[in-house]
Amino acid sequence: MTNPTTITAPEGLPFIEIEREVDAPVDAVYRAHTDPELIAQWLGPRGYEMEIERWDIKRGGGYRYIQRDGDGEYPFNGVVHSASVENGIVQTFEFEGFPGIVTLEYMSFEDLGDGRTRLHGRSVFPNLESRDGMLQSGMDVGVNEGYERLDELLAAAEKSVSA
Amino acid sequence: MTNPTTITAPEGLPFIEIEREVDAPVDAVYRAHTDPELIAQWLGPRGYEMEIERWDIKRGGGYRYIQRDGDGEYPFNGVVHSASVENGIVQTFEFEGFPGIVTLEYMSFEDLGDGRTRLHGRSVFPNLESRDGMLQSGMDVGVNEGYERLDELLAAAEKSVSA
Repeated sequence: MTNPTTITAPEGLPFIEIEREVDAPVDAVYRAHTDPELIAQWLGPRGYEMEIERWDIKRGGGYRYIQRDGDGEYPFNGVVHSASVENGIVQTFEFEGFPGIVTLEYMSFEDLGDGRTRLHGRSVFPNLESRDGMLQSGMDVGVNEGYERLDELLAAAEKSVSA
Repeated sequence: MTNPTTITAPEGLPFIEIEREVDAPVDAVYRAHTDPELIAQWLGPRGYEMEIERWDIKRGGGYRYIQRDGDGEYPFNGVVHSASVENGIVQTFEFEGFPGIVTLEYMSFEDLGDGRTRLHGRSVFPNLESRDGMLQSGMDVGVNEGYERLDELLAAAEKSVSA
């Protein structure tokens, strides 16, 4: 049984908000976001291969990756304003299929105790049209499947530590 | 006689928009934004000294500077998502007096011909409260005086080229 993911698009405001609980400690969840070998195993929908060109999630860093399935290639890039487990990650995000539409993403990692974490994400778009376009792109499938894959990755890591 | 600066805060949307015409060619106006020796001569209100720690305005670059007057120090920092005269500058912006409130700034440079340029700026805030706080901070004084100083700098450069 997986935890639910809440995706909210507030009326009239160019934001997408995501909330998700994860049954793993905050340090492990943060590492799964910042370690390139881990992120490649869970980000995005099932059935895609994630090729990482750069994954340098620290203040002043940046990233570029390509999601591939049988049909095509989807490259993304951004720069990292700041990143720490305490204050979360603030980074830009651009899908190169729509060059110039850049969003600012906030992701924070709330320690719930008992080895559990709550993720709070906010994407801030440059206008309402690009926010609505993102919603209509089917991004919810990628987000939901991605967090299911994150659960599986963290459960497998936990099992290998316990074994 | 200086050109007017238009600062707009659209009702209900977390944006501040700035428009300003400048009587100088687009390349010179862009260089005044990206060259650290030039930016230090005009950015911000009169009566402040701008100390630049880093000014690297290119894709993946970043900046940090401190505005100083008799009363205090005001440090700012950000990272640069992309920068070109054709597509403008997209960068983050954080006043370290309010750490964690990061905005995304778009600035584009429209060539009006006849050696004139129109600047279009948009700052995208993470919420309405921080946008309204910025408006109430007296930022309009800094923006207006900054562009007056930019006019003076570009006029002086033009004069020295013509001389």
